Amino acid sequence: MKLGLIGAGRIGKLHAELLNAHVPAAEIKTVAEIYIDEVKEWANRHRILNLTTDYADILNDAEIEAVLICSSTDTHARLITEAADAGKHIFCEKPIDFNIEKIKQALTSVKAAGVKLQIGFNRRFDHNFKKVHELVASGKVGDVHIVKITSRDPAPPPTEYLKVSGGIFLDMTIHDFDMARFLSLSEVEEVYAQGAVLIDPAIGELGDVDTAIITLKFKNGAVGVIDNSRQAVYGYDQRVEVFGSKGCVEVKNDFPNSAKLSTAEGVVSEKPLYFFLERYKMSYVEELKAFVDAVANDQEPAVSGNDGLQPVLIGVAALKSLTEKRPVKVEELEA
Amino acid sequence: MKLGLIGAGRIGKLHAELLNAHVPAAEIKTVAEIYIDEVKEWANRHRILNLTTDYADILNDAEIEAVLICSSTDTHARLITEAADAGKHIFCEKPIDFNIEKIKQALTSVKAAGVKLQIGFNRRFDHNFKKVHELVASGKVGDVHIVKITSRDPAPPPTEYLKVSGGIFLDMTIHDFDMARFLSLSEVEEVYAQGAVLIDPAIGELGDVDTAIITLKFKNGAVGVIDNSRQAVYGYDQRVEVFGSKGCVEVKNDFPNSAKLSTAEGVVSEKPLYFFLERYKMSYVEELKAFVDAVANDQEPAVSGNDGLQPVLIGVAALKSLTEKRPVKVEELEA
Amino acid sequence: MKLGLIGAGRIGKLHAELLNAHVPAAEIKTVAEIYIDEVKEWANRHRILNLTTDYADILNDAEIEAVLICSSTDTHARLITEAADAGKHIFCEKPIDFNIEKIKQALTSVKAAGVKLQIGFNRRFDHNFKKVHELVASGKVGDVHIVKITSRDPAPPPTEYLKVSGGIFLDMTIHDFDMARFLSLSEVEEVYAQGAVLIDPAIGELGDVDTAIITLKFKNGAVGVIDNSRQAVYGYDQRVEVFGSKGCVEVKNDFPNSAKLSTAEGVVSEKPLYFFLERYKMSYVEELKAFVDAVANDQEPAVSGNDGLQPVLIGVAALKSLTEKRPVKVEELEA
Amino acid sequence: MKLGLIGAGRIGKLHAELLNAHVPAAEIKTVAEIYIDEVKEWANRHRILNLTTDYADILNDAEIEAVLICSSTDTHARLITEAADAGKHIFCEKPIDFNIEKIKQALTSVKAAGVKLQIGFNRRFDHNFKKVHELVASGKVGDVHIVKITSRDPAPPPTEYLKVSGGIFLDMTIHDFDMARFLSLSEVEEVYAQGAVLIDPAIGELGDVDTAIITLKFKNGAVGVIDNSRQAVYGYDQRVEVFGSKGCVEVKNDFPNSAKLSTAEGVVSEKPLYFFLERYKMSYVEELKAFVDAVANDQEPAVSGNDGLQPVLIGVAALKSLTEKRPVKVEELEA
Repeated sequence: MKLGLIGAGRIGKLHAELLNAHVPAAEIKTVAEIYIDEVKEWANRHRILNLTTDYADILNDAEIEAVLICSSTDTHARLITEAADAGKHIFCEKPIDFNIEKIKQALTSVKAAGVKLQIGFNRRFDHNFKKVHELVASGKVGDVHIVKITSRDPAPPPTEYLKVSGGIFLDMTIHDFDMARFLSLSEVEEVYAQGAVLIDPAIGELGDVDTAIITLKFKNGAVGVIDNSRQAVYGYDQRVEVFGSKGCVEVKNDFPNSAKLSTAEGVVSEKPLYFFLERYKMSYVEELKAFVDAVANDQEPAVSGNDGLQPVLIGVAALKSLTEKRPVKVEELEA
Repeated sequence: MKLGLIGAGRIGKLHAELLNAHVPAAEIKTVAEIYIDEVKEWANRHRILNLTTDYADILNDAEIEAVLICSSTDTHARLITEAADAGKHIFCEKPIDFNIEKIKQALTSVKAAGVKLQIGFNRRFDHNFKKVHELVASGKVGDVHIVKITSRDPAPPPTEYLKVSGGIFLDMTIHDFDMARFLSLSEVEEVYAQGAVLIDPAIGELGDVDTAIITLKFKNGAVGVIDNSRQAVYGYDQRVEVFGSKGCVEVKNDFPNSAKLSTAEGVVSEKPLYFFLERYKMSYVEELKAFVDAVANDQEPAVSGNDGLQPVLIGVAALKSLTEKRPVKVEELEA
Repeated sequence: MKLGLIGAGRIGKLHAELLNAHVPAAEIKTVAEIYIDEVKEWANRHRILNLTTDYADILNDAEIEAVLICSSTDTHARLITEAADAGKHIFCEKPIDFNIEKIKQALTSVKAAGVKLQIGFNRRFDHNFKKVHELVASGKVGDVHIVKITSRDPAPPPTEYLKVSGGIFLDMTIHDFDMARFLSLSEVEEVYAQGAVLIDPAIGELGDVDTAIITLKFKNGAVGVIDNSRQAVYGYDQRVEVFGSKGCVEVKNDFPNSAKLSTAEGVVSEKPLYFFLERYKMSYVEELKAFVDAVANDQEPAVSGNDGLQPVLIGVAALKSLTEKRPVKVEELEA
Repeated sequence: MKLGLIGAGRIGKLHAELLNAHVPAAEIKTVAEIYIDEVKEWANRHRILNLTTDYADILNDAEIEAVLICSSTDTHARLITEAADAGKHIFCEKPIDFNIEKIKQALTSVKAAGVKLQIGFNRRFDHNFKKVHELVASGKVGDVHIVKITSRDPAPPPTEYLKVSGGIFLDMTIHDFDMARFLSLSEVEEVYAQGAVLIDPAIGELGDVDTAIITLKFKNGAVGVIDNSRQAVYGYDQRVEVFGSKGCVEVKNDFPNSAKLSTAEGVVSEKPLYFFLERYKMSYVEELKAFVDAVANDQEPAVSGNDGLQPVLIGVAALKSLTEKRPVKVEELEA
């Protein structure tokens, strides 16, 4: 299967490399990137033959069955529509957009075209979270009562990035909102967000927060809580726990090795893997495999367009809650 | 040092037994218990010589330096005042009362009499939580950003008990509110409580909840979250985590042993210790030792009267938050 | 039940204190100690009324049902015989003696007198090892194939002690030989000992070793290995593992608390409990309870006279193996 | 860099696939395999263009700089010599041979030709064992006193394989002998092997054992122990521990995920990764990268010819020890 990559920034390059190395059934035929000079050497090293500044070269290539949309967020919705209209199956990085209407329009195009769309919520393919989902889905935890998600980055992104990030809820917590739905097997009904600026006043000056606790109420009656920080000095902290009527399942962080050194000073072991590239590398491979499989076997993608929409709705509700200092129902946004 | 015990129910008996076995510097001289026939055999077995139905026999005994108040909650405030007036040092089980005014009056009596008062928040003496407190206090975690407390009972108490319990926040979460203050080194400013009835509809019929997530905002800027359940089928779940600018400290549950059995079916280990008598036994010993030491050495008790008041204030705020579906500032209650 | 304590050194005092505090059904009536002046204050503090320099005062006291023999090792065998002849039940510290003939004679006296004898192999009552034994005995591990025991002290004892200790195998490894039998459910057939002097040359000058690996062959076909060190700088290291046809069970060390601190420098937690008084405190309580129960209910003690004999046989075989640089069968010693 | 692969059985194919996917600086140009029909489809799928039954096609190809020798063990020594004579750098699977003289001759050829030779002791590149080595080498453990290696396979290989395997010590323990040298930073001086047939009598009928405990004495004074089983029903058990004057470092098994499920029945988690393909996959990648780097940068390979020789010497000594029931010095074999 031939694919086209639109946008060869950090995440786009990562997808292309992983696909070529780990998904024998597929390969990147063409890469479209405006800053073409900056990717030539990379493309050459990874034996990608076709480079273009015009993504239309991909959409018009009959041999290309599917596209990976990895360009900037503000182009996602439009590119989804154009790719769908061109009959291409679509893998799109998260978030689809910050604007709910634009997301809905893109999803309408996809539906009309009958193409497949998978959103890049890669954590669903992480070995740990996937296992939690399986245990919950198989009933081992019973009815879900409490979902807890810890999600902390090792260091805040540059201010330039933060300005266009959409804020912590749409940039960072959006993954956790997806996890909350994935692990609770339910939609989110209500959100209450508590935020603080404890790491860098510059973040506060942007109107954003760097530390947050978000309480969720699910439609199945369960409650949930997410805690976020932009700076865990010991590394990427990504843990979840689902508690229910029959038990509780937890997963820990991943570590570079399990060495434990006991000395007169104490017992020391490694910090967690530093950030998402280390922690989630294999989940990126797995999501690409799943997408290629879904296309090849004409099956529903594992992460649907609605799975792309819902976390944005929850994120917007969280922002509204933080601003208005009250719990906000997700349906308020749909009214 | 001779002590008197007022109220020989389950917790009163426990205190007396632990004091006699583990605190060589002190002993229970007299026990006052209305249902005297029900404790005679127990008192005899534990070599307690004096039994009375009238606690005045304790207050009037010049040889008795201190009293342990372990009677029902509604008698605590009055007994504190009477004991203080009689010049006795006081160890009182939590909560002092559900009524904030009555608590304040009792504390005023204590202050006027110049006696010592220690409140029975035993978890401060637990080996795990004490270590977390020490690490936070010594600056190892840096500025506190997030406090997380998991507190789940193995099974709900009988409905008869629940009726007079004061509700989950004043009966169960009150310990967690104390922990939140103890571990954050700060007072609580604002509370948002989310509750659900997921375990037993009978609990809902009492106007109570059995599952809760409570978000806290501390005066030092930190945020916190407590999750409660009345029924963790795998046993008592008591974990905390404090995250700050320099790191994160976590403690796990205690287990009866560390045996890990690996077979073709998987890897199996023990459930946590079943409930508070197993998990917190040594913390009860330590709090009694600390009280006896404070009296003997004329020092401030480790858990003050204000430490008894604050969790009740937070608990009342939590209940108000649950009822009014909004965040509630603790100072609203003081107004 | 009244007991007499013969020998109030460190371990004798410990037994007396634990019995009085934790075994309500029994109490120490009389303590016999040659250096009586050195224990008067202690006896007074623990409300022990009768002190004597002559253990005959205990053996002749009709009210005393049982004795705890905690004097120096060279007196154990003789005292067992005298106590048996006096009709007293006997709890004797390990080892019974270093001389196999003397042990056998003592056991003959016990049998003739029909009294109960329990040997102080307290680790059988440790929460962890007891659970391993139960899992093996219940068949969860299947046929035992491999037994592994790690047993390392935090620091070597004084040279004066080492001189009369009987050497590492009879002083320290003897507990592990007992564990090997307890966990394998089998007798030891053959021993191969490898030793080294790596910690203190003074130990080598005594003809002893401070580091050892002892391979065992059991009568049931299983193999085993014990590793010893006189100095684990991080504290007492006491772990076991039993591997069999159906699985493997392991236990870890005990720790003062489970606090785990993650910082930019790494993840740090506590060292194991420092030494046997901390690690095995509750096992001492449990062995005393078991002894009192066995006497009270006329049952076989949990650790028999033969359980006292076998580890000495294995220890002597280990020493012979080390000296002769070859595997030694335990039956060689019986020939 | 172009490489040739000689022998495309399971391990040969694995190396080729991993090299092509993970080592961008190198690629397999030609594969030599006698049973050429059985690898055609595989070679095609992995875009390997040249297939031959005659490895001379590789040795005579001037463009090929290095060979991977993955054929049957009995051909290794001869192929090393021929490849060295042809001026090719050599990566050879372990063991070089079972015959010490043949190994020495091969190493002489390599030395004479001045080519690089790396032996396939992949575990040195495992994330866990590599870290242990680093901690020991950096002095964190102090002087090494005790090395412990647990190495158990999930299931015995087929009898047909066992017949030509060289026995457990040269087939399975050989990796552990390499680890012992790698982690102790010392050569092995003496070996004592204890073996048993506990899993399958058919293994005993071949004159082999399926369970073993091997005690090692190192030249630096340290002692060590390896325990082996051909059948750990819970999966591949690969742990090591190094204890020294300053502390102790341990590593655990790797697991597919860290999910821990607590229910009323107990706490359950995953079994270790099943076997070497799962556990050591990344170590195979790392050893190939190291080999390609060593060739590219003209450096000494990380696992030398002598590193290939020593474990065979130890293995032969272990077999001699088992047969003669006595400790055997490695130098006996060199005499």
